[in-house]
Amino acid sequence: MDVKQVYELVKNGLTGVEDNFKALAFEKSKSFPELHKMLSHILCGGGKVVRPLLAFHSGSLFNYNHDKLIYMASASELMHIATLVHDDAIDKANMRRGRATINSIWGVDRAIIFGDYLFAKAAQFAVATGSLRVVGLFAETLEAISHGELRQGFSAYKLNQTFDEYLERITGKTAALFALATEGGAVLGEASEDSIKSLRDFGINLGISFQIVDDILDFTASEKELGKPVASDLVQGTMTLPSMMLLERFPGDNPVRRIFNNEGDSHENVKEAIALLNSSGIIEECYKMASQYSEKARRNLDTMPDTKNRQALIALADFVVRRSK
Amino acid sequence: MDVKQVYELVKNGLTGVEDNFKALAFEKSKSFPELHKMLSHILCGGGKVVRPLLAFHSGSLFNYNHDKLIYMASASELMHIATLVHDDAIDKANMRRGRATINSIWGVDRAIIFGDYLFAKAAQFAVATGSLRVVGLFAETLEAISHGELRQGFSAYKLNQTFDEYLERITGKTAALFALATEGGAVLGEASEDSIKSLRDFGINLGISFQIVDDILDFTASEKELGKPVASDLVQGTMTLPSMMLLERFPGDNPVRRIFNNEGDSHENVKEAIALLNSSGIIEECYKMASQYSEKARRNLDTMPDTKNRQALIALADFVVRRSK
Repeated sequence: MDVKQVYELVKNGLTGVEDNFKALAFEKSKSFPELHKMLSHILCGGGKVVRPLLAFHSGSLFNYNHDKLIYMASASELMHIATLVHDDAIDKANMRRGRATINSIWGVDRAIIFGDYLFAKAAQFAVATGSLRVVGLFAETLEAISHGELRQGFSAYKLNQTFDEYLERITGKTAALFALATEGGAVLGEASEDSIKSLRDFGINLGISFQIVDDILDFTASEKELGKPVASDLVQGTMTLPSMMLLERFPGDNPVRRIFNNEGDSHENVKEAIALLNSSGIIEECYKMASQYSEKARRNLDTMPDTKNRQALIALADFVVRRSK
Repeated sequence: MDVKQVYELVKNGLTGVEDNFKALAFEKSKSFPELHKMLSHILCGGGKVVRPLLAFHSGSLFNYNHDKLIYMASASELMHIATLVHDDAIDKANMRRGRATINSIWGVDRAIIFGDYLFAKAAQFAVATGSLRVVGLFAETLEAISHGELRQGFSAYKLNQTFDEYLERITGKTAALFALATEGGAVLGEASEDSIKSLRDFGINLGISFQIVDDILDFTASEKELGKPVASDLVQGTMTLPSMMLLERFPGDNPVRRIFNNEGDSHENVKEAIALLNSSGIIEECYKMASQYSEKARRNLDTMPDTKNRQALIALADFVVRRSK
């Protein structure tokens, strides 16, 4: 199945999420025009809507209720957006997906509170699913995300990091939210506990694969494709898989070490790091690891009903590794 | 009933909240020592625990379940703490209740994510009540708080503000969380819809009274009593009732106008504003208004069962106006 079909199959659901977001922004158009502008800016900018796709296809494998799945998908996407608003505020990032960030337009202070507002609205979508279990997953996911981000903050510019630490961080930062979408979908579809567990694992493995590819693309994609500067993780002292492998392969002086130690010209170091990652075969090895997690994810679907939704989830597992942005 | 008794009556519940918080901090002592330190710092500093008091006394009027009320009280207090962490990060405040703020020790970036972490934990306490309705109230309250804070941010340093706007802001910023505690307690106590509504109104009116007194004390208490600099709202361009009345009473040149317009010496302007607020009788008038809301709150209790818990809520309504810090 191609990616276009993956979207096409759950088109009604995705439109439902869009409608929820439009209603959210519209609600404030008269009573609080500034908030309305912030909401419109952040909610009507498109995006890959990966988490809603996961929620719809996971839920649709079972005895799903369309309205509840729309709330679930809206909750997971909005929580994702809220965390990005806080991330960008912290990183003082100017661009995200090629668009100006909230903090670059309205300042860091308002971005903090606006992020909280979005968390509140996301939580309300979670409550609207009518499932206390889903709301519990929602809260645990926010814990995992902020835990992962705190770990990242406390490990910034630290050279000695293990692969397990990296894995723990990206599981919290990215995979937890993928798992919320897949597990939440399965819970709302009244799947068996075994199936719920399998779909949770699928979300975790897919999320890890997705984040590894993100961390590769940070070095290999263009600024235009990324919608933000190249190698921004490295410059901010965030250790990712490519940097970690480069440090391991070249234990002496190397551009990653220099950037973490704030030595030499940052721009030159970044250029050198990218060249070294490509020439050494590290990029390929990182892709191999991403493929392994994607393959694990695919296997988590072995026992799922053989429907178009399962095919769509398999197509997504392929796509996260193949994508160029 | 004196305040000591108000605490004494629900001592077991308050200990339960403390135990929850200690367990939360302890959970990370080995696996994430930095997070453990942040949690211990923010959760073990004492505080007035007004919201837990409200939850316990409101819930105990009815057919309450002690464990559920402890979760409710923990959720409301932790949400309160999380919002303070973000507020202090935004205000770059160094002190809160006489203790160093999270951002002053760990920086603004980590304070943002740590606040998110606390929201997640607070949401989990709300989920632990087992009541989807309570979780819904929890999410709506976070919306009201962040909405109020955003309003405050967008109205900073604006001289033309109405009393209704002030009321809307403090209802969101403070009263909504009081109402969560009282309404949530009543919901968990399986009170009638009429009683739930009355206790919600009690929380709103009490919260408004509380915040008006807070806004008075910002001018009249000492730095030591406040645990932060005097008149910090005014200096940060936040319009409060005393400032608003001063602007109305002295329409020409006055110290509040000068501070909002960034004219003259800030320290001198603050001193002059305090003197003027006292000599003009504005402070007394503000207290009169706080008393009116406290009186409204008391009347919301007219139909409640005549128990010690009702007496405790009445005592709290008296106390919020009488307190000196």
